[in-house]
Amino acid sequence: MPQPFELTATEAAKKMRQRDLSPVELVESLISRVDSLEPRLNAWVYLDREAVLADARDKEAELGSSTKLGPLHGVPIGLKDIYYTAGIPTTACSKVYADFVPDYDATTVSLLKQAGAIMLGKTVTTEFACMDPSPTINPWNPAHTPGGSSSGSAVAVATRMCPAALGSQTVGSVLRPASYNGVVGFKPTFGRVSRYGVIPVSWTLDHVGWMARSVADIALLLTVMAVPDSHEPITQRQPSSEFVSLNIMAGLESPPAPRIGVIRRFFYDHADRETCEHTDGVLEQLARAGAMVEDVTLPDSIDTAIEDQRVIMAVEGAAFHQANFERQPEDYQPGLREMLRRGLATDGPTYSRALERRQQFIAEMESLAEQVDVLLTPSTPTPALADLTNTGNTMFQGPWTSCGLPAITIPSGLAASGLPFGIQLIGGSFAEARLLGAASWCEKVLDVHLSPSVDG
Amino acid sequence: MPQPFELTATEAAKKMRQRDLSPVELVESLISRVDSLEPRLNAWVYLDREAVLADARDKEAELGSSTKLGPLHGVPIGLKDIYYTAGIPTTACSKVYADFVPDYDATTVSLLKQAGAIMLGKTVTTEFACMDPSPTINPWNPAHTPGGSSSGSAVAVATRMCPAALGSQTVGSVLRPASYNGVVGFKPTFGRVSRYGVIPVSWTLDHVGWMARSVADIALLLTVMAVPDSHEPITQRQPSSEFVSLNIMAGLESPPAPRIGVIRRFFYDHADRETCEHTDGVLEQLARAGAMVEDVTLPDSIDTAIEDQRVIMAVEGAAFHQANFERQPEDYQPGLREMLRRGLATDGPTYSRALERRQQFIAEMESLAEQVDVLLTPSTPTPALADLTNTGNTMFQGPWTSCGLPAITIPSGLAASGLPFGIQLIGGSFAEARLLGAASWCEKVLDVHLSPSVDG
Repeated sequence: MPQPFELTATEAAKKMRQRDLSPVELVESLISRVDSLEPRLNAWVYLDREAVLADARDKEAELGSSTKLGPLHGVPIGLKDIYYTAGIPTTACSKVYADFVPDYDATTVSLLKQAGAIMLGKTVTTEFACMDPSPTINPWNPAHTPGGSSSGSAVAVATRMCPAALGSQTVGSVLRPASYNGVVGFKPTFGRVSRYGVIPVSWTLDHVGWMARSVADIALLLTVMAVPDSHEPITQRQPSSEFVSLNIMAGLESPPAPRIGVIRRFFYDHADRETCEHTDGVLEQLARAGAMVEDVTLPDSIDTAIEDQRVIMAVEGAAFHQANFERQPEDYQPGLREMLRRGLATDGPTYSRALERRQQFIAEMESLAEQVDVLLTPSTPTPALADLTNTGNTMFQGPWTSCGLPAITIPSGLAASGLPFGIQLIGGSFAEARLLGAASWCEKVLDVHLSPSVDG
Repeated sequence: MPQPFELTATEAAKKMRQRDLSPVELVESLISRVDSLEPRLNAWVYLDREAVLADARDKEAELGSSTKLGPLHGVPIGLKDIYYTAGIPTTACSKVYADFVPDYDATTVSLLKQAGAIMLGKTVTTEFACMDPSPTINPWNPAHTPGGSSSGSAVAVATRMCPAALGSQTVGSVLRPASYNGVVGFKPTFGRVSRYGVIPVSWTLDHVGWMARSVADIALLLTVMAVPDSHEPITQRQPSSEFVSLNIMAGLESPPAPRIGVIRRFFYDHADRETCEHTDGVLEQLARAGAMVEDVTLPDSIDTAIEDQRVIMAVEGAAFHQANFERQPEDYQPGLREMLRRGLATDGPTYSRALERRQQFIAEMESLAEQVDVLLTPSTPTPALADLTNTGNTMFQGPWTSCGLPAITIPSGLAASGLPFGIQLIGGSFAEARLLGAASWCEKVLDVHLSPSVDG
């Protein structure tokens, strides 16, 4: 029998519904896990044990009395500390927001609560979900970066302190830490999930994303949060005809072997040899199991996409922070300070040309994704490096954030150094059902489940 | 029997197909019309009589021999001089582009040609489709502005020098001159028609649009040009499921009485008394004929939309013109020069915040439009004014260009001054079929057909 803290969200939800597990038991198991690991790992900034246990007791009572239970009934979820939580501090791990207590929940938080989830606590983010490293420790090796910016969420999920946690991705802030820590990380199509009530970095790039330990969990959270939101203009353009939940869950049941497009240019050019060899091995394994694997070619617009994304993030970050930054520049950390100075100094026409080139890039990447079921790349150029001065290289995630296509990383093995590898799968625009079906198929074939040794 | 030049595009196409009219006859009639009126009106910058007649003779031969004729076979169309025409000068009526001869056609021009249309010539635009008045004369009264920026196209269609002509709208450059000159003017949903090969003003605001003398003609041109274009990223997001042509033409056959939402705030506040009274009269007439007329309320985001649009246009205009403008600023006219200076001086964060507010405005306006079949406003605050120092007030068209919804103006009567009135109808996002159906219904009920007295 696994301990409750070891269960995935889907497993825990099922057990609770079958009355094989109580929400209180689960929360107590997770809290004791947090109590034993948190002093070494620094994954959390806020966890109100009494409030969470009270919520778990309510959920337990509802299990007995209510006939209409949400799909996440009793499941504890972690929240990166940029998600507004009514009455609970939301600091973005920044001095600038140190005293901020929102009076409403982010739309995603409301939707999770409506689905019955328990908000376990707030996880560490790099300051304002940007580049300056956070105090979170990589549980696989403390000398290596845990990645960023959603470092607390990734480490909490990897070490079984919670089954799933929300992060956010503006360049590579969900999939990179997920891959570094050996968990599944996902961001949906731009426009699929509301960002209302999430402290922004960059309004044309920010995505809500999340981590879990199975593709099924990722899908379950998507069905709960893929809802248009009148507070969030980007969600108004969702294809309304598709009944998202049913499609996604149906796609997971017995997904067909996918047609996989491998992108060697750019990704193989920038990955180290071990990562390339590992990825080739994964591709062979998937092909042997029946996947159709073919090479596809990145459009030339990739050449400007990275630098354009850098310009766009700086300008939009500055657009949000300008007033605070001009009042208290020294309260910002050095990396973010440099970015905001750069954004403030960028002229409108330069930013406009970057946005316009990106529009072309988006169209070309959407066409590329339509050639196959999923695109595949290594998730990161290398496993997490032994360098705590930065949160790692974002270039393998950035293009998919810039073009808005949905992307997922799944664990695929361990490097010689003992650190996790991941493969990144990318789907077509608003084609999450197909992407998650393919990811689920790959997950079954690879059958890699990673857990850092933190109990010693 | 009307003279050939008096025919609409739909009428002319039908007569030619029935062999009641030859393309050569039609072109000769239009050219003689141009020859008699152009010296007074300055609507054209380029018209190659021999080439057009040769094209007409080819079209005549095809009428006899070909079984597959395009829907615009033999119909002459005017092109605002910002549309790329292979081998033919495309000057934007600017010194900066005085010697520019493109080597390919704009996508729209290719599509019109494929549909059998004859490119009659290039019409006068204000410099680079911006604000400095053009030499075109208002055929209703030479002391009044003809509007801009598509002044030549509007005047050519109003005076029967061609049945239809392309313009473009970044703020109010199609519907305003169309209304001032008593013709039908239309711009589709942002993203519906390709702008590839059209000299830009502002990449997030520019729309292709056109003028004609009936809603049926407007619809016919839309069915030809509503095609996704791999060269034009904005057209990739068109709903692909809708078979545009059939829907639109079906909507015109016997359109039902529409549900009309009247917007009094902002529009009635800024229109003069005679325009308000005229619009109320139109509404009474439509209601008597069976339309359901109700008041709807503009969202508060209208308050910032006008100024934000001004910022966006200046920055994006500067993004395109920067290199030429820095080299030869004196070759730009004063209004445009001021705008480009302002755009170059605008910082990235200011422009970004304007774009972000606009995203909210778009979402709110799309919701507003979904409450009814069409929204209705006066097309302009006043008929064309006796002021040749500017091209008139754009504020009644600008909001629909900024939010990207499709809009049409149809002639609705004459003011005491003898100048035309128009009403503007606005449809839902990508709901052109419903909009044009409603416009066709209103056109039948109002039965207003205007023609300036230019033969005297």
